Amino acid sequence: MQNNSSHCDQKFQVRKLEISDKSKGFIELLQQLSICDSVSDKRFAERFEAISSYGDDHLVCVIEDDVSGKIIATGSVFIEKKFLRNCGKVGHIEDVVVDSCARGMQLGKKIIEFLTNHAYSMGCYKVILDCSNENKAFYEKCGYKQKEIQMVKYFI
Amino acid sequence: MQNNSSHCDQKFQVRKLEISDKSKGFIELLQQLSICDSVSDKRFAERFEAISSYGDDHLVCVIEDDVSGKIIATGSVFIEKKFLRNCGKVGHIEDVVVDSCARGMQLGKKIIEFLTNHAYSMGCYKVILDCSNENKAFYEKCGYKQKEIQMVKYFI
Repeated sequence: MQNNSSHCDQKFQVRKLEISDKSKGFIELLQQLSICDSVSDKRFAERFEAISSYGDDHLVCVIEDDVSGKIIATGSVFIEKKFLRNCGKVGHIEDVVVDSCARGMQLGKKIIEFLTNHAYSMGCYKVILDCSNENKAFYEKCGYKQKEIQMVKYFI
Repeated sequence: MQNNSSHCDQKFQVRKLEISDKSKGFIELLQQLSICDSVSDKRFAERFEAISSYGDDHLVCVIEDDVSGKIIATGSVFIEKKFLRNCGKVGHIEDVVVDSCARGMQLGKKIIEFLTNHAYSMGCYKVILDCSNENKAFYEKCGYKQKEIQMVKYFI
């Protein structure tokens, strides 16, 4: 049992997004979450560089399936610097998705733990995220609690 | 009526935060929103520079009362760069507060309009914010709609 668990942990390790992940189905995975047309290599590279320029203040992580070579889970966190809370920092988790074919393997939990730990290591006093009522129970299992409501204004 | 309105608009203009606003009660204003002990000038300057280094990707705005010389309203927005929505951008509005002595003058609406317009001008496809149920009606008047729920994990 211990060995199986270790094997599973080794198999599905969370790591930072790499530019080569575009060819491993990263965009197709995001399409399971929201509107995401195919993106040119140039545009992807530019956005990758723009996000990377924030260093540890904006982290996109992934889980790759070593067997298929596909990206099967992802999530991101960015660190907001505030004046309140004595010039505190807040982690914002965004765009968490697990491949519909890879559900039930706790990959979402791994992603959230990775992002939450990153925010903690960056000195945040809290991490926040928005989710549907449907996903509330999942985040509660990850140690999150409901607090406020999310309001949105769309431009397009 | 037209003149009064113009006068009021001139009097309560929204502008970017300046480093000298610390001495105009900016921190005391934030204390009306959340925990915010007094901050040293050095720490304030460091955080001001850190936020300024993001340029238009992180904007803190204020309204100054020309009569008292005090900051009486503030809010911030930062621009998150995503891969989904065809490498889209999302504006995140945070830390909106109006001085309890300056309520009823539509200053909150001015702040939200300023931040929303900034997100639009930066090419965001949407702007989001979290608020209490109590403040939902105010944001609806600003053109926002409830969408999801906010989950939080506190480290301290």
